[in-house]
Amino acid sequence: MAQFINEKDATVTEAVDGVIQASGGALARLDGYPHIRVVVRNDWDKSRVALVSGGGSGHEPAHAGFVGRGMLTAAICGDVFASPSVDAVLAGILAVTGPAGCLLIVKNYTGDRLNFGLAAERARAFGLKVNMAIVDDDIALPDLPQPRGVAGTLFVHKITGALAESGASLDEVTRAAERVIAGTKSIGMSLDTCTVPGSPKEERIGLGKAELGLGIHGEAGAHQIDYHNAEQAVAAVTAKLSAVMEDAPHVVLLNNLGGASVLEMSILANELATSPIAGNLKLIVGPATMMTSLDMRGFSVSVYPLNTQDQALLTAPCDPSAWPGCKALKPVTVIALPDGLRPIQPIPSEHKPTADFLTRCCKILIDAETALNALDAKSGDGDTGSTLAGAARALIGAMNRLPLADHTQLFRAIGQELSQTMGGSSGVLLAIFFTAAGDAASSGLSMVAALKEGLNRMQQIGGAQPGDRTMVDALKPALEALESHGLAQAAQAARKGAIHTASITKAKAGRASYINAEQLQGHIDPGAEAVARLFEQLSA
Amino acid sequence: MAQFINEKDATVTEAVDGVIQASGGALARLDGYPHIRVVVRNDWDKSRVALVSGGGSGHEPAHAGFVGRGMLTAAICGDVFASPSVDAVLAGILAVTGPAGCLLIVKNYTGDRLNFGLAAERARAFGLKVNMAIVDDDIALPDLPQPRGVAGTLFVHKITGALAESGASLDEVTRAAERVIAGTKSIGMSLDTCTVPGSPKEERIGLGKAELGLGIHGEAGAHQIDYHNAEQAVAAVTAKLSAVMEDAPHVVLLNNLGGASVLEMSILANELATSPIAGNLKLIVGPATMMTSLDMRGFSVSVYPLNTQDQALLTAPCDPSAWPGCKALKPVTVIALPDGLRPIQPIPSEHKPTADFLTRCCKILIDAETALNALDAKSGDGDTGSTLAGAARALIGAMNRLPLADHTQLFRAIGQELSQTMGGSSGVLLAIFFTAAGDAASSGLSMVAALKEGLNRMQQIGGAQPGDRTMVDALKPALEALESHGLAQAAQAARKGAIHTASITKAKAGRASYINAEQLQGHIDPGAEAVARLFEQLSA
Repeated sequence: MAQFINEKDATVTEAVDGVIQASGGALARLDGYPHIRVVVRNDWDKSRVALVSGGGSGHEPAHAGFVGRGMLTAAICGDVFASPSVDAVLAGILAVTGPAGCLLIVKNYTGDRLNFGLAAERARAFGLKVNMAIVDDDIALPDLPQPRGVAGTLFVHKITGALAESGASLDEVTRAAERVIAGTKSIGMSLDTCTVPGSPKEERIGLGKAELGLGIHGEAGAHQIDYHNAEQAVAAVTAKLSAVMEDAPHVVLLNNLGGASVLEMSILANELATSPIAGNLKLIVGPATMMTSLDMRGFSVSVYPLNTQDQALLTAPCDPSAWPGCKALKPVTVIALPDGLRPIQPIPSEHKPTADFLTRCCKILIDAETALNALDAKSGDGDTGSTLAGAARALIGAMNRLPLADHTQLFRAIGQELSQTMGGSSGVLLAIFFTAAGDAASSGLSMVAALKEGLNRMQQIGGAQPGDRTMVDALKPALEALESHGLAQAAQAARKGAIHTASITKAKAGRASYINAEQLQGHIDPGAEAVARLFEQLSA
Repeated sequence: MAQFINEKDATVTEAVDGVIQASGGALARLDGYPHIRVVVRNDWDKSRVALVSGGGSGHEPAHAGFVGRGMLTAAICGDVFASPSVDAVLAGILAVTGPAGCLLIVKNYTGDRLNFGLAAERARAFGLKVNMAIVDDDIALPDLPQPRGVAGTLFVHKITGALAESGASLDEVTRAAERVIAGTKSIGMSLDTCTVPGSPKEERIGLGKAELGLGIHGEAGAHQIDYHNAEQAVAAVTAKLSAVMEDAPHVVLLNNLGGASVLEMSILANELATSPIAGNLKLIVGPATMMTSLDMRGFSVSVYPLNTQDQALLTAPCDPSAWPGCKALKPVTVIALPDGLRPIQPIPSEHKPTADFLTRCCKILIDAETALNALDAKSGDGDTGSTLAGAARALIGAMNRLPLADHTQLFRAIGQELSQTMGGSSGVLLAIFFTAAGDAASSGLSMVAALKEGLNRMQQIGGAQPGDRTMVDALKPALEALESHGLAQAAQAARKGAIHTASITKAKAGRASYINAEQLQGHIDPGAEAVARLFEQLSA
């Protein structure tokens, strides 16, 4: 699978520069490229406790995406899936730590523990107060003495970030981190592996399989299980979580491991909100892409029991746009459908001249069925005649339901009939034509002026202009002639317009726009022909 | 490719419910399932102009994700890649439109135009003021009279959203939409097709190829081109854009089409910020996932020329968390590396007893090289002896650079030497041991107490406890005995501890934790053996 990268060795530096340039000036970096990649808040004055996190890259937006007011002070970015060097961590600590001290938030991987740990020692030798909190939220392998740190780390970033921003001491911030770490449990599931830049993709998870209990470095999950659907996926994950959750309100974090679509994540959110543990899920972070394993098509769920203070810290405003907010998880609010959705049926009324006229129009179209189909077969799928004739027959059948005595209502009623009985785009377009004409008539326009207004609207919605080889080429000149010169002239104008369509070989709207010129040459557009026949026979 | 979905027909309703439940009560939906899927603001009082958008699903977070204060009032969600019905659109309009009227923001696809268009006509028949703006920002096919609407639609949502929120009239909001639409240009590129729920994936784009000029419905791009890297991808896209951009400041929107990783999107942002058009890009929205084609591994870039009013509207606060904000696109701010990153070399000083003692320790370890390697071969890769001996030789070579007369400084200096000369985890752990011991010594602790403090820190960072089959099993009892009973007792304690490791068959830390019990049984841990030999020979 190709990726949007350049030289493999430049992957992290280029990505970090991208994040900084798009940050609106909120972020900066230390001058340590290529090996020292440290992203820092650009507004930092060392007046409060600094929060430094990081680790291997490939987990974006973690960690650089969470640097900013109310979350991290600095992020140390290692190579993809590799711990940053001691020097890089030390540079970050030294750059942001003032008298209030610094807390390192480190995920429980050996390389990170050691390199952040040694950097902390070195920083202490400079007289700095540096504490370290090791996140180990993964419950995939319950017997493992050193569980991995995964997406639950976000709870630590947010809660300690808000606390540090409020001016809390290093001891208070450290205790908060330890409290959050002790309470946070996470587990992940994936349908596919990830693609490490510059490496071939490992095809480890077969179709119909999923891995449960994943880290964030592409390593195999604790279990490979059969995969059925989203419901089962969430059931598998929540079963693991419920075994270690206390019966108390929690915040839940739903994390995209990188390659699940937003649509899928929303479905997973719905499953989570209706899962057996949902009763204890009061707040939700996400669904969002927060701690990824590159492009892994998977998700993880993290839970943490709530208390009043942490709830306030989780929901406190913060700057990083990668933080999706922490919101109440609530049942769906369903609002009644608005009145009037089903259009009010007009009150039928009799008016013999109108009924006769309408019936005559319909019969003209019914009689033209075969000819119009034949014409349409030259440039389309040969059904224009049948579509129009079918609608005409339906309209005749509906005649005694129509408000024949009220032309304004009649236009709208015809529009409604057509939208229900005539398929495809042309049905909707003619419905728009008659509905808009009715609209115009109700505001006092004459019948012909109202029809012209209907045409305008149909053109606006359908996008067809004169010369585009559609029924507009006949209908527009016909209505204009009708207004000024009467029906006979209208028929002549319609015929002239229809004939002209036979010379238009570059259709710009409608289905004929997909047909090449040779196929169109010499054939009148069937819609325009229908209009011409209608006007000609009405004027005969 | 399996996906996190359930029944195909329930995909959109489940996803919509997921979005609503995770919205913290900000969103609601109309009671029209399964066919009418309309997401509305839950705080809407019809006092201002309503903004209604939507279309097919599969473009998440568009459109439901952008419903909220300052953006859309309602989103109409069709089936995946299919226009919503006229009834669904009408329901949305009727639900949110008050006396101020409603603007429909519709992407230029025939189905959407027609269905939103007819719904608008129907709504007008109820006396509602409804305008419609058709977004056609795609420049993939410059000759196409009806360009598609793609991610540039977000500019329309945000600018009209902020304007409507401020109480502007329907005319003002409509004119703003038309202005934004007239100025917005977009183009997309992808390395792969998307996976439509319930359908097999179309393998259309071969490895080494990319499609340029994509819509958002999985249709083929205007061109299939050779793909090299991120730089070339952005160059191809910006070349198309620069041909139609005026020479003026623009806002740029960098959109993930669904399947690109956050890491890749950051690299693309960096390319965009250093591209030939960068001089005219003043503001940036993203990189973020805004208007997707399900899981397509692609991106799109949209540009719009800025004016003062639009800039204020684009950067105005809004509620939907899917909107990533609009920020200044700025060069990278580079901050000088902090002083003291390179540790200050201690001032060498002479102290013959210390030099002799240190040299003796080193020689003991050098002499043990072969024996320790042999022991390590039982449970590891057989290099413990060589690693320790190498470090010991380096330390002897560094003797005349060490501050031998100042024990506090000496501990730190030894830690620094070890971190530079001794590879692997053990080098870092011993560096932590000596650095932390120096730290403790500097605060007045005795030498042995300081070493105990160093051990504590090493255990904290490395995670090894007594009984975990590491050097701790010998070192911890040795230091305890040293403090209370002297060197001879320390040697006995170290040996006792080392011997005990031969019976520990379940290692919990270090590399031996990956080895099975049979391989460990009866073999002393080589680190513990080294400690025992050191104390024994020092006391001899």
